[in-house]
Amino acid sequence: MTEDKKISKATIRRLPLYYRELQKIESAGLLEVSSIYLSEKLGIKPEQIRKDLITFGSFGIKGLGFEVSELKNKIANILGLQNNFRLAIIGVGNLGAALANYEKISELGFVVAALFDIDKNKIGKEINGVRIYDFAKFIPISRRKLIDIGVIAVPNSEAQKVADILAEAEVRGIWNFTTEKLNVPYFVTVVNEDLSIGLNTLSFYMNQNS
Amino acid sequence: MTEDKKISKATIRRLPLYYRELQKIESAGLLEVSSIYLSEKLGIKPEQIRKDLITFGSFGIKGLGFEVSELKNKIANILGLQNNFRLAIIGVGNLGAALANYEKISELGFVVAALFDIDKNKIGKEINGVRIYDFAKFIPISRRKLIDIGVIAVPNSEAQKVADILAEAEVRGIWNFTTEKLNVPYFVTVVNEDLSIGLNTLSFYMNQNS
Repeated sequence: MTEDKKISKATIRRLPLYYRELQKIESAGLLEVSSIYLSEKLGIKPEQIRKDLITFGSFGIKGLGFEVSELKNKIANILGLQNNFRLAIIGVGNLGAALANYEKISELGFVVAALFDIDKNKIGKEINGVRIYDFAKFIPISRRKLIDIGVIAVPNSEAQKVADILAEAEVRGIWNFTTEKLNVPYFVTVVNEDLSIGLNTLSFYMNQNS
Repeated sequence: MTEDKKISKATIRRLPLYYRELQKIESAGLLEVSSIYLSEKLGIKPEQIRKDLITFGSFGIKGLGFEVSELKNKIANILGLQNNFRLAIIGVGNLGAALANYEKISELGFVVAALFDIDKNKIGKEINGVRIYDFAKFIPISRRKLIDIGVIAVPNSEAQKVADILAEAEVRGIWNFTTEKLNVPYFVTVVNEDLSIGLNTLSFYMNQNS
């Protein structure tokens, strides 16, 4: 799928929005959807939507709309959602717990398969039906639970240590909520999350409007 | 500052990264920095860094580097960080509590000035030194605390109701963590946060590499 490598980061960020809207439209029993409709629902310009969706093939004809399930499945395929990647969340503080409860993760086909912490008061408990395990046992449990992605929600000072253990367990993806720049082997893909970016975007626009 | 309206969303997303790195460099006592150094620290290509920073004026000369505090202040100015915008977080569940504890918010000059909930067991308590108030009293407390930005971290079903009250209190910005598309008056700027986008980006790249 080398062609997909050309998709811009901005487009990748919009694909889940399309996917989720298409899920709703499909559940409502509709078979076709126009870029105008998607535009109204998502607040994205119709030209942008057509441009995004045309990137990966000319399904959808201008004026006739897109075939809902075909488009939905194509996006799922591009985003890798059909893999049903299995997540482990490491660090069950407020952030880890919020992620364990975050509905969109499962709506998109990801499976939160295990939680890990080092706090003995948390180990053995459950959040949203998922058990908290001792992080000291990460490697065997991760293999048993077929973990694909480790979500690092620990303090910065622990982040690299956690990443080393995830790599040792051959976890292929890391979703990093710390500000540490992680060193990982070639087979591990890292995406750094920064919750403050949205806030900066907001203050940028507020600053423009003042 | 109409010139700044042309800055792309992707650039706006990178500015806080530059800002934070420049803060570190300034604390370390350095006066100048090259795009190569920033590139190594941030994992962004030097050409991209030069392109981003040149967008808002030609401070920085190729080969000579950027003057650290000038660049830092300019970015702060563009992002509106000098306003020290005051935040209220509405909904003190795991996500709201995680945000109340999120260091980057204060590092960037934002002030978490008040927390709100409707749960009597939470009202009156503090997180990170900030008090939880009864959301029923939002309007007078918001005015007294000079709240600029409301962070909506409540269930989806409550989001519009909260947004209406924020608008009534003349809060100018909303950072929305729900998936509801909010209807707000013209003077309110909304940024929608979607925690799952980073996860989708990760699965996209993992899918490419498999």
